[in-house]
Amino acid sequence: MVSKERLSRDLAEMAKCSDTQGTAGITRLAFTDSDWQGRAYIIGQMKELGLTVRIDAFGNVIGRWAGSREDLPAVLFGSHGDSVPHGGNYDGVVGVLAALEVIRSLKEEGFAPEHSLEVVLFMCEESSRFGAATLGSRAMLGRLSQADLQRLQDAQGKTLYAVLQERGLQPENVGTVTYPVPPKAFFEVHIEQGKVLEHQGISLGVVTGIAAPTRLRLHLHGKADHSGATPMGLRQDGLCAAAEVVLKLEELAAAMQEIPVVGTVGILKVQPCVMNVIPGECELGIDIRSISAAAKDKVETALRQAIAEICQRRHIPYDIEAVSKEKPVAMRPEMVAFLQDICRKSGAECITMPSGAGHDAMHWAESTPTGMLFIPCKDGISHNAAEFADIEDIVNVTKVLAAAVKEAAQAGQKF
Amino acid sequence: MVSKERLSRDLAEMAKCSDTQGTAGITRLAFTDSDWQGRAYIIGQMKELGLTVRIDAFGNVIGRWAGSREDLPAVLFGSHGDSVPHGGNYDGVVGVLAALEVIRSLKEEGFAPEHSLEVVLFMCEESSRFGAATLGSRAMLGRLSQADLQRLQDAQGKTLYAVLQERGLQPENVGTVTYPVPPKAFFEVHIEQGKVLEHQGISLGVVTGIAAPTRLRLHLHGKADHSGATPMGLRQDGLCAAAEVVLKLEELAAAMQEIPVVGTVGILKVQPCVMNVIPGECELGIDIRSISAAAKDKVETALRQAIAEICQRRHIPYDIEAVSKEKPVAMRPEMVAFLQDICRKSGAECITMPSGAGHDAMHWAESTPTGMLFIPCKDGISHNAAEFADIEDIVNVTKVLAAAVKEAAQAGQKF
Repeated sequence: MVSKERLSRDLAEMAKCSDTQGTAGITRLAFTDSDWQGRAYIIGQMKELGLTVRIDAFGNVIGRWAGSREDLPAVLFGSHGDSVPHGGNYDGVVGVLAALEVIRSLKEEGFAPEHSLEVVLFMCEESSRFGAATLGSRAMLGRLSQADLQRLQDAQGKTLYAVLQERGLQPENVGTVTYPVPPKAFFEVHIEQGKVLEHQGISLGVVTGIAAPTRLRLHLHGKADHSGATPMGLRQDGLCAAAEVVLKLEELAAAMQEIPVVGTVGILKVQPCVMNVIPGECELGIDIRSISAAAKDKVETALRQAIAEICQRRHIPYDIEAVSKEKPVAMRPEMVAFLQDICRKSGAECITMPSGAGHDAMHWAESTPTGMLFIPCKDGISHNAAEFADIEDIVNVTKVLAAAVKEAAQAGQKF
Repeated sequence: MVSKERLSRDLAEMAKCSDTQGTAGITRLAFTDSDWQGRAYIIGQMKELGLTVRIDAFGNVIGRWAGSREDLPAVLFGSHGDSVPHGGNYDGVVGVLAALEVIRSLKEEGFAPEHSLEVVLFMCEESSRFGAATLGSRAMLGRLSQADLQRLQDAQGKTLYAVLQERGLQPENVGTVTYPVPPKAFFEVHIEQGKVLEHQGISLGVVTGIAAPTRLRLHLHGKADHSGATPMGLRQDGLCAAAEVVLKLEELAAAMQEIPVVGTVGILKVQPCVMNVIPGECELGIDIRSISAAAKDKVETALRQAIAEICQRRHIPYDIEAVSKEKPVAMRPEMVAFLQDICRKSGAECITMPSGAGHDAMHWAESTPTGMLFIPCKDGISHNAAEFADIEDIVNVTKVLAAAVKEAAQAGQKF
């Protein structure tokens, strides 16, 4: 039986592994002593459960429960253990602890898997230390190169290569030694980091895809004239143009009903930004996301057309810098249906929903049937000391994960 | 005859009185050595012209040409000699040099005034050093108190009182010893500091009034949620609300056709201003100006209603801080008509127009028939090293000023 007490204890133990405490939240940056302390706790739990623990070149931890059919690929599940500075005790950790508790409960009930079961603790999912995210998964899948290890540095200028070396790992093998064969399935439990579940009053979300951003920087070259001496008709107000762009993006994204798209102007910098001067130069940071590349592109194209029209009408020169265009990942419909079915059988109400944020799961989803389960977090707050998830929701999702793993562990089950 | 050569020479001499040169523009902050050097040049010119120079408690310089009717009030004209940091050689200076050249040309032609003529060089018109503008005029009119002299400090923390003392002036008399009786008229020539004249291809503007700003700070308390994980329908995006406010103000001001109003959001600060977070807190600096208080109030009222509607619809709490609400000054219609008439008789094409910026003239206009003449400045640029006015326009306006002063100098002329 999935145990609330054990999950609570594990959460409390992990909360101790942090450079900060209390209202300063959890600070467990990748490969720091706190992270290593948390990792040691997880390894300890794995060993207590009789799992065979192996460590890969990057430091990712895999605890294996050998199934009766060693010839078949394993069912892999887990998440990451690192945090952002002053973050919460749920982002990542909930997925790792749920995975451990699944093993515990299945062992308790005497379950005998055919496929081997592997609990994974990914290293360095957060971009906080090295400016790049999901590095552990990328290393396991052979998508992290030796050049990356030299290029990526922390704020102190220490390379990721050197950091791995200091931890006694094998950076020289990263890129060549990877996770052996694609697992049968990968499952990840995670807090939503949004408000959708809370808003709908539902404690479980089956993820349909992981959105990826298209990011643009728009530079509007308005004219910074005197705000008293320049009549309305003679202005080239950069901020008025920016305001139209902001509202147009909102309108375009909101209009995408069938496949949701979110569009945000998160950055707006105005020059000179004083009371008596019309804004001239304006810089906008635009973020468009969807689990559908086509839907995302549709909004981007319409936005670019709108920008051209707005700037022509307002006589404002502009340029657009394409910052990034990442590929969203759709979860396989069979996997979504499988998890919905598991939920139904477990009596757990769920909705399907996209993930707006990136996760380790997105890397696995390309080659492996990948299922992701979300639980609500209070007010949608994450990456913040105020991050909070209800233990009842954690217990609930752990039960669903256990049921999913149990079914996937059967050789007869296919995705 | 108004002489282009003498005006050019004076401009060149004044350009030398600056802490910065060339592309760094003119830096002649009030009461600095550069300002004192420029002031000495003006005093020298006044004396050369046979004017009787007196200095008031604040350091304002008045050069008097006694008329035949010493019992009548003087006709006063001039402007200021200080500049902003890295400003131009035209803002203020053109008005002072035009006034001197009027005296020169009238002396040359053997004119004999009935009213005395007084050229004035105002101190400290720019707010750059003490954070408050038109201090010289305010002192002359008894609107600068002893408390003000102690309160106003420069960036080094030196009080205005101490600065006046160091210049050998009489700060202790400021507030009590003022310009004796209202002059018959006050005239000021100034660069437009806007683009209206240039846009219309006209080299002279008769000012109908001096606009004054109503300034508001609007704080929008949006919610800084994750831009990937928050669907469009669950957002309280501070920037989207701000964008609506920006465009509403533009629309409201542009709709005021009869009495022009300008409305500007000059300040927009967005928190946290990063790519992957929806803007939460937004701060807007709003500036509304008109020469009509009623017109300005109409726009302010409508804007406040719009803000309430926008924020209610978007579920965004807000507060509005009333920063300032200054009273605009309308020039007397008879004075406007007088100057238009002078222009017509001089063959100088002119338009009437409001002044968006504040000037010394606004203080005089309340108690004295006050006329203000604008000339174009290139691209509307002022308070900048690129500030430029055409010498032909300066000559042209000086001729009009001379004609105006000549008529006003006659006892028979009444406003």
